[in-house]
Amino acid sequence: MSSVVDNDQNNKTPVIQVIHGPNLNLLGQRDPDLYGSQTLAEINTELVALGEKLGARVLCFQSNHEGDIIDLIQKSIKSTQGLIINAGGFTHTSVALGDALEVYPHPLVEVHLSNIYAREEFRHHSYVSPHATSVLCGFGADGYFMALKSLIKK
Amino acid sequence: MSSVVDNDQNNKTPVIQVIHGPNLNLLGQRDPDLYGSQTLAEINTELVALGEKLGARVLCFQSNHEGDIIDLIQKSIKSTQGLIINAGGFTHTSVALGDALEVYPHPLVEVHLSNIYAREEFRHHSYVSPHATSVLCGFGADGYFMALKSLIKK
Amino acid sequence: MSSVVDNDQNNKTPVIQVIHGPNLNLLGQRDPDLYGSQTLAEINTELVALGEKLGARVLCFQSNHEGDIIDLIQKSIKSTQGLIINAGGFTHTSVALGDALEVYPHPLVEVHLSNIYAREEFRHHSYVSPHATSVLCGFGADGYFMALKSLIKK
Amino acid sequence: MSSVVDNDQNNKTPVIQVIHGPNLNLLGQRDPDLYGSQTLAEINTELVALGEKLGARVLCFQSNHEGDIIDLIQKSIKSTQGLIINAGGFTHTSVALGDALEVYPHPLVEVHLSNIYAREEFRHHSYVSPHATSVLCGFGADGYFMALKSLIKK
Amino acid sequence: MSSVVDNDQNNKTPVIQVIHGPNLNLLGQRDPDLYGSQTLAEINTELVALGEKLGARVLCFQSNHEGDIIDLIQKSIKSTQGLIINAGGFTHTSVALGDALEVYPHPLVEVHLSNIYAREEFRHHSYVSPHATSVLCGFGADGYFMALKSLIKK
Amino acid sequence: MSSVVDNDQNNKTPVIQVIHGPNLNLLGQRDPDLYGSQTLAEINTELVALGEKLGARVLCFQSNHEGDIIDLIQKSIKSTQGLIINAGGFTHTSVALGDALEVYPHPLVEVHLSNIYAREEFRHHSYVSPHATSVLCGFGADGYFMALKSLIKK
Amino acid sequence: MSSVVDNDQNNKTPVIQVIHGPNLNLLGQRDPDLYGSQTLAEINTELVALGEKLGARVLCFQSNHEGDIIDLIQKSIKSTQGLIINAGGFTHTSVALGDALEVYPHPLVEVHLSNIYAREEFRHHSYVSPHATSVLCGFGADGYFMALKSLIKK
Amino acid sequence: MSSVVDNDQNNKTPVIQVIHGPNLNLLGQRDPDLYGSQTLAEINTELVALGEKLGARVLCFQSNHEGDIIDLIQKSIKSTQGLIINAGGFTHTSVALGDALEVYPHPLVEVHLSNIYAREEFRHHSYVSPHATSVLCGFGADGYFMALKSLIKK
Amino acid sequence: MSSVVDNDQNNKTPVIQVIHGPNLNLLGQRDPDLYGSQTLAEINTELVALGEKLGARVLCFQSNHEGDIIDLIQKSIKSTQGLIINAGGFTHTSVALGDALEVYPHPLVEVHLSNIYAREEFRHHSYVSPHATSVLCGFGADGYFMALKSLIKK
Amino acid sequence: MSSVVDNDQNNKTPVIQVIHGPNLNLLGQRDPDLYGSQTLAEINTELVALGEKLGARVLCFQSNHEGDIIDLIQKSIKSTQGLIINAGGFTHTSVALGDALEVYPHPLVEVHLSNIYAREEFRHHSYVSPHATSVLCGFGADGYFMALKSLIKK
Amino acid sequence: MSSVVDNDQNNKTPVIQVIHGPNLNLLGQRDPDLYGSQTLAEINTELVALGEKLGARVLCFQSNHEGDIIDLIQKSIKSTQGLIINAGGFTHTSVALGDALEVYPHPLVEVHLSNIYAREEFRHHSYVSPHATSVLCGFGADGYFMALKSLIKK
Amino acid sequence: MSSVVDNDQNNKTPVIQVIHGPNLNLLGQRDPDLYGSQTLAEINTELVALGEKLGARVLCFQSNHEGDIIDLIQKSIKSTQGLIINAGGFTHTSVALGDALEVYPHPLVEVHLSNIYAREEFRHHSYVSPHATSVLCGFGADGYFMALKSLIKK
Repeated sequence: MSSVVDNDQNNKTPVIQVIHGPNLNLLGQRDPDLYGSQTLAEINTELVALGEKLGARVLCFQSNHEGDIIDLIQKSIKSTQGLIINAGGFTHTSVALGDALEVYPHPLVEVHLSNIYAREEFRHHSYVSPHATSVLCGFGADGYFMALKSLIKK
Repeated sequence: MSSVVDNDQNNKTPVIQVIHGPNLNLLGQRDPDLYGSQTLAEINTELVALGEKLGARVLCFQSNHEGDIIDLIQKSIKSTQGLIINAGGFTHTSVALGDALEVYPHPLVEVHLSNIYAREEFRHHSYVSPHATSVLCGFGADGYFMALKSLIKK
Repeated sequence: MSSVVDNDQNNKTPVIQVIHGPNLNLLGQRDPDLYGSQTLAEINTELVALGEKLGARVLCFQSNHEGDIIDLIQKSIKSTQGLIINAGGFTHTSVALGDALEVYPHPLVEVHLSNIYAREEFRHHSYVSPHATSVLCGFGADGYFMALKSLIKK
Repeated sequence: MSSVVDNDQNNKTPVIQVIHGPNLNLLGQRDPDLYGSQTLAEINTELVALGEKLGARVLCFQSNHEGDIIDLIQKSIKSTQGLIINAGGFTHTSVALGDALEVYPHPLVEVHLSNIYAREEFRHHSYVSPHATSVLCGFGADGYFMALKSLIKK
Repeated sequence: MSSVVDNDQNNKTPVIQVIHGPNLNLLGQRDPDLYGSQTLAEINTELVALGEKLGARVLCFQSNHEGDIIDLIQKSIKSTQGLIINAGGFTHTSVALGDALEVYPHPLVEVHLSNIYAREEFRHHSYVSPHATSVLCGFGADGYFMALKSLIKK
Repeated sequence: MSSVVDNDQNNKTPVIQVIHGPNLNLLGQRDPDLYGSQTLAEINTELVALGEKLGARVLCFQSNHEGDIIDLIQKSIKSTQGLIINAGGFTHTSVALGDALEVYPHPLVEVHLSNIYAREEFRHHSYVSPHATSVLCGFGADGYFMALKSLIKK
Repeated sequence: MSSVVDNDQNNKTPVIQVIHGPNLNLLGQRDPDLYGSQTLAEINTELVALGEKLGARVLCFQSNHEGDIIDLIQKSIKSTQGLIINAGGFTHTSVALGDALEVYPHPLVEVHLSNIYAREEFRHHSYVSPHATSVLCGFGADGYFMALKSLIKK
Repeated sequence: MSSVVDNDQNNKTPVIQVIHGPNLNLLGQRDPDLYGSQTLAEINTELVALGEKLGARVLCFQSNHEGDIIDLIQKSIKSTQGLIINAGGFTHTSVALGDALEVYPHPLVEVHLSNIYAREEFRHHSYVSPHATSVLCGFGADGYFMALKSLIKK
Repeated sequence: MSSVVDNDQNNKTPVIQVIHGPNLNLLGQRDPDLYGSQTLAEINTELVALGEKLGARVLCFQSNHEGDIIDLIQKSIKSTQGLIINAGGFTHTSVALGDALEVYPHPLVEVHLSNIYAREEFRHHSYVSPHATSVLCGFGADGYFMALKSLIKK
Repeated sequence: MSSVVDNDQNNKTPVIQVIHGPNLNLLGQRDPDLYGSQTLAEINTELVALGEKLGARVLCFQSNHEGDIIDLIQKSIKSTQGLIINAGGFTHTSVALGDALEVYPHPLVEVHLSNIYAREEFRHHSYVSPHATSVLCGFGADGYFMALKSLIKK
Repeated sequence: MSSVVDNDQNNKTPVIQVIHGPNLNLLGQRDPDLYGSQTLAEINTELVALGEKLGARVLCFQSNHEGDIIDLIQKSIKSTQGLIINAGGFTHTSVALGDALEVYPHPLVEVHLSNIYAREEFRHHSYVSPHATSVLCGFGADGYFMALKSLIKK
Repeated sequence: MSSVVDNDQNNKTPVIQVIHGPNLNLLGQRDPDLYGSQTLAEINTELVALGEKLGARVLCFQSNHEGDIIDLIQKSIKSTQGLIINAGGFTHTSVALGDALEVYPHPLVEVHLSNIYAREEFRHHSYVSPHATSVLCGFGADGYFMALKSLIKK
């Protein structure tokens, strides 16, 4: 678990959980033309800083394990007020992930770095989208920041 | 692992393993009209008690991790005489889970709380069913008790 | 009409109608390994007895005629408090049967002797299921008894 | 043509064209819960103001005529540096619109007010997406502002 | 309307209408490797000249508006003796265009500059083809000249 | 625009808008066996007369332009009390038209001259039907009169 | 057989057979918002009266039995001059019914009370439509009267 | 029931049951070019005579009722040694019929008068064929005689 | 070419060509339970003899080469009065074979030894059937003799 | 092999190979309305003459054998400068033919006599088209001459 | 036929037949990056040498003719003890080839030079695979040697 | 983690990672006829030994957890020079696994013990294959050894 800062549960500031799915830990190392040159750590640091500036606590998590992501979504029901998720390859295959998100009661933004609707057919279906408040793709790492601003605004 | 009582392997009483898949740990908290108001812990306690009454040891397990469920099914081949599984969202997507169940040599009952055949199209296909002895859905928590009685009768 | 006992409409005990669809009259004679060795008459007798024990009057009916089954379902709307149906081959083809069941206002359990989800593709779709409270398959004749107990409990 | 301010072609500030497709002129009047209570005129005014603040000239256009939209996209090739398009119902049916966008050489953001991936199946396919730099949906009118900021940043 | 010469309806020479659909006005400017370097104006001039040489009056029309094209096809029923159409993106989506062509009583040649059968799947279906006398694709601008010669020959 | 009489907006009599889609202006000239020998002008005259007799003002409009039809539907929201539409080829392809009709708040009858369900497969799907109060096809021009009477009755 | 008046075969007035398929006998009792509050008996009485007024003898029949309906259609070939059929659920499943109607040599109107094209996908296909002269749906009980008037007019 | 001679169950000669499905009672009256000019009665008489000549008793039955046909197939299990069935429209839709034939333990020949594989797509699938020993189509009434000779030979 | 006797073209007796497709030369050696124990040579000899008896000259041909079979069909147009073809695996894949048979102007019987409609899905489609007068399958080698008798009768 | 003149390999004039697929040898004899009254020999003679006039040597070949056509395409790689192919029924089924054409390095024109896109669905897919420079259909025999002129021009 | 050495049928050493399908004779000349630079002759020589070293006689055959390949497979049933086949384009289209291989009673290895599962969709289905003992692809020419060693080991 | 020897990272010998997916830990215990009698431990030992002999260090890993396999693939990018993967049931369902393999920059061989292309339809699609250098199936445990030799050769 690469969770960045998670101690201060009594704080009254709203909490936003960011979840990065499988293979997103390779960001920055892999195909910088397509995915940008920022590492996931850099993006997370920037997300936390932006949250702080806008008055929200941002928690970041990455995992290649579907079960860990579902566990975290369930825990986030009570302890967070918004969710940003880039579920990577699980987006297209995990009914269980979709079921977990269906229960999540707060605003939820689905993010993809690349424009998945301009890629392979099997990436056009998402088990996340039906449960998302809104969807963002093709903005690179900026997508996360746009999502965060939008969530905090609400 | 939320396994309820698992010490007494030398006992001669038959052993039934109950497996609850992803998101079933939320039972009782979520959508009581659809899923009932019993928590999973309460259901498990009742299952163990019913088993005891009917002369069987019942083991209960819940996980959001496909791998943990497959590991347990494999271990159950030798140590149990029957399996009750509600695979949740994995039901519709996991070939690996189906492959594990194909090897399981004892009676196997598939349970779903709601009537999945009255829900979304993608919930109508199950990788569990071809390997199940029998299937039960739409009985709420009672489905587990009916499944248990049926297994012990055999 | 092979209806077993049907005289006593003023009785206050709840009435459960059991409907067996096409070819189920061959039970016991045909493929005992798959369908069990009990004849339909024996099952019906046992159902009536079980109902009596649990305080319900059970009516049994079998037909190879879709129209006769629809006629009976319509009549059961007023005179019964629960329905158990194994619609046999009509399960997969009869929109008219599904329309009749949609109107039926009481609990309704769909039963199949064998696990139809482990058989041919065309048996995986049911026009009965969307209107059923719950579904049971692969328990052999026991399925009827489980369904009856479950209905009376409600 | 409801185009808001379009006189000043020699200006050096970048020009962003916003295109609203069929039925979007009804915004604010229709289904405010789903689409928000802002009228299209209010959104356009706000877009122009935001553009001004960020140093860009924003042109707004709405039409129910596929041909008018294609005409404008072709003209925008030379006179604009970015495009924001919510093609409404044409999104899902117009190959000709997609062909026009394929030729557009600058950044292009596809916007939808509602989350189209949580709606009817036929709204899941877009002839715009394969040619879009990025896609945004489910943010209501905010989606336009997010898109504009993102385009100007580039 | 970019129609080239259209005054002289009493003339006895046969009249051939050429219709260019959406985005074909960009010819020569766009992707010269794929579509050739001739502009549409040059092609039209050459078509008129070739027609004159072969004893036919050639009328040329381009539009991005489906309705304008249908209007023209209807008018051409009485005033022309042959039709050449490259319906661009409308080819694959317009039932209304196909219905208009179905009524056209004279020879009709469908032309595409590129080989559409070697491109995306959705370009393989044409609502024009069932009503065309013949089809030509992948010859670039030459396709128009071949079509014209073939029509006049008839 | 071939709209027949449209001056008298202050009148209190209910207003019914009739919309004829692409190629319907050819009625009477084309395939009289299939579509009847009445011209569209004759049908419109008869519709206006019938409306007058029944106490309603009937407005008639035909266009081959999807955008013009959508524009008119939007305008009809406030100024009419009922809509009769034969959307011709747009019936099967226009999501934008369907979206416009979805907003229309009064009774809406879909009419087709021929029995479209006995024709090509692609004519069996209609983007109009889901938003129509009722559907009529195969009655020839009579269909319009039946639709009008039915609307006025309401 | 609930056939209303059928004695007077030598009469010279034209005879129209009305056939109501499965579950239509429940009309008036069931879901009055969707299907109206008239009972089938009331509709039939009104149909007979309307026929009488217009100079035709109207025969009405309802059955939940596909075979009875086919038998009647065959008999109607010689003894009737027109057919009105609402085949209910058989509409979508009965090839045999379609085959019987194919032989029927007189005008044939298909009626549905609700707009079936705005309902479930499986109700969009009809084995009746290809053999019907015309189709009417979504007019409630009025549909029958419109159909009758239209048939007698012919 | 139009069964031709059925009294002589103690006779030792083999018994062949011929079943004609829906609409086949119209043979001879309907479309003689396609189906031949022999009536069903004539065919049955000829079948009985041919059977007699070849040493078999032939029973003939026609019905438009699926249930009657299933009833008869079930009864034929014990009392016949071979079955010839032309299930008409039930061929393509009746799972229940297929289930009944699956139980039939003797040789079974499927006959169609016309070549169903040269007709509509929906006639290419048969629920009878998987249970038939052999299939014959396109031989007109001769198909029955060929089937009978073939069965008796076995 | 394994053609059995082919010299006597001036003869006035009708000529029937029998064509056996790929792998049928293995008959008798392969899977006798399924395909019978007769060799192709024995079947051919018997066919020639039967033809002689019934007054027809029978020519037999087997090939694993699609081109040879098409060549022969073309030659048979003038020199034969009937065709019996078991096209083996070519049945399901050869458009060219179907095109050749479309031209063949005399009666044509399609034969298959086994019941192909009870086998793999891909064997249910035949490019031969649409051009065949009649089809026979599942009669083993007898199918050829039945086909021959039927052809000569005509 | 019906190859017309093939001796003169050292000649410097460009060589164009024309390939006619299965059943095209029947041209002129069969269905003159659809395919024209010219025989293949006449077309070939005319092609050779036209080639001579335009300074190219034209070789013509017809075969019903897929293998012979592939052999010839392979040989043509080195000895020809252009290919015209009407692959007949192989067009829609032969991956091997498509693979051979993929290797052919010179311009390649696909020709069909009739408009295949107005015929059966299975004729709408071509394994030749993805490898063709251009495609021509529905021009009858003229298609060959147009193709030849176009090739020589290049 | 390019068969390399085939004289010595009495030899007791096991015989392995290698079959190369259409277009494989172009190996080495075509696209060396994808298919390697070895010619088919070189591969065959190496296969024979490797066989000799391992104590087996290897026969090699290439053809563009489906029929020749089927002929050879049939002959190989008796005279060989193993088969290696790269059926090229026939892999995806030839039911007849699959039928021939189904009869082949010895081990059978399917080889493809490139990884066909990473290529076009239509190359993902193989009529060879269901009858192959094992499948190898993407190893270039090495695939043949691996297949040969594996076969001889058995 | 059942990883066999993994200490010696500084070693210069190439490193090959072998990954066994879900249920492969049951090898040897389960269905020895289909999967062979070797246990996974025996296969791994043999792989390590073969690697040593050929100058490569072989690491072996088995898991039923998709996430653990993805983690390992990511780590293998830097520390290994080749990958052998039998992804079991994940092969057909895991987009995330495919995405991880897409990043892996060294040769990659996909192995399956049984011939998956001769099994259920859903096993014919692989998310691994598009990223594999080569694929091997149906060789039993030998497949791993063949894959290893092939990788080391490169």
